[in-house]
Amino acid sequence: MSPAIRIILVHTSHPGNIGAAARAMKTMGLEHLYLVAPHAFPDPKAIEMASGATDILERAVVTATLDEALADCTFVAGTSTRSRAIPWPLQSAREFAESLHAPTHAAQTIGLLFGREQSGLTNEELHRCHVHVHIPANADYSSLNLAAAVQICAYEWRMASLARAAKTTPATVEATWDHPPATHQEIENFYTHLEKVLILTGFLNPAAPKQLMTRLRRLFSRMMPDKMEINLLRGILTSIEKPKQR
Amino acid sequence: MSPAIRIILVHTSHPGNIGAAARAMKTMGLEHLYLVAPHAFPDPKAIEMASGATDILERAVVTATLDEALADCTFVAGTSTRSRAIPWPLQSAREFAESLHAPTHAAQTIGLLFGREQSGLTNEELHRCHVHVHIPANADYSSLNLAAAVQICAYEWRMASLARAAKTTPATVEATWDHPPATHQEIENFYTHLEKVLILTGFLNPAAPKQLMTRLRRLFSRMMPDKMEINLLRGILTSIEKPKQR
Repeated sequence: MSPAIRIILVHTSHPGNIGAAARAMKTMGLEHLYLVAPHAFPDPKAIEMASGATDILERAVVTATLDEALADCTFVAGTSTRSRAIPWPLQSAREFAESLHAPTHAAQTIGLLFGREQSGLTNEELHRCHVHVHIPANADYSSLNLAAAVQICAYEWRMASLARAAKTTPATVEATWDHPPATHQEIENFYTHLEKVLILTGFLNPAAPKQLMTRLRRLFSRMMPDKMEINLLRGILTSIEKPKQR
Repeated sequence: MSPAIRIILVHTSHPGNIGAAARAMKTMGLEHLYLVAPHAFPDPKAIEMASGATDILERAVVTATLDEALADCTFVAGTSTRSRAIPWPLQSAREFAESLHAPTHAAQTIGLLFGREQSGLTNEELHRCHVHVHIPANADYSSLNLAAAVQICAYEWRMASLARAAKTTPATVEATWDHPPATHQEIENFYTHLEKVLILTGFLNPAAPKQLMTRLRRLFSRMMPDKMEINLLRGILTSIEKPKQR
């Protein structure tokens, strides 16, 4: 079983870039395109730039918010050129593509985010990601066009798929896991619950939250909980709110 | 010494594609662009699509024939999607880029040809090449935009250059992190503390612990916390034991 990947373009300004990204995806065999609050879509310029990949545009899912586009994803990655105040797990586009074809990712629904043409993804958007993905561009001129960045990531995805297919013999050993991965929505609900409990215990001061929730997101996103595990964590939070004995 | 590579666009129809190709080259640190009998160049559309890579356009060499553009090259490669009547040495874009960084190529001047938007390179042009280079695209839709094909080849060139540089320099660049990893002892202390708090809240019944701590170990071990993060988790546990407000 292969993981499913969706390309998510966040707040794209130019519809031509959406079309060019659809074309780039299709050349590499990707088909799931999500558009978060695009400036203009549908648009004739998108169709023109998609060339023969208009089927990707027709099936594209438009959402008002990033969380809607991510709701049923189980693993989220965001492309980023900037280094951050709080370091986050970082992979090159190649490392990312190769890691996704490891057996542990077989049942994942993966969201790969691309930000605005001028300013990329915001910190808040990047904090929703398990990993940040970096294209090792020229440090003096790293200004990849949006569709070019999609092209490279889609290409790496395809190269990793082909490499894996070549290696796959009839009986490869798949790592098994006992529960399906938690979705983005389930994990966001956990963070909401966690924040509430930390305010209750006094650990988090809502008037001066500092970087606490960001640091906790970075920490918990690394453990990629399955559904049973996220329920277990939620159960712990509930037991803190309503202790059975004290 | 690294080989020098020139990107040679043959009979390009749309000046916008020349500009986008220049941008793609510059993002990957390539700078030598040759244009064989372009339909329109210079052209405002090329400048617009080049974004900040107009220096590549200004230094581009325009020739009337392919042989002029190739005159001082020592190795020639041509991108091609079609299979040919007469089989020719064929490499993927990745194999090609990696092979160029072999010591045997160190002093080469390499020409990499990209054909017309609609029809690619002619057989006659392809027969001037030592090797044909293939981008492993979707067989059902292999219609890469010209600049996208340049982007992928330039990207593979850069990745191979970086891999070679990493092998030859003593100090490779390590991913940076802001705090050192927590030790085994610090993590064990965390588990002890966690178990104590879960008994306190009533979530864990010491008379019937089941697999709870095992499941929590499996979960938390995946996040590999650093020292600051483990202190943060310990702080949360303490705030549950001794709430500041309730």
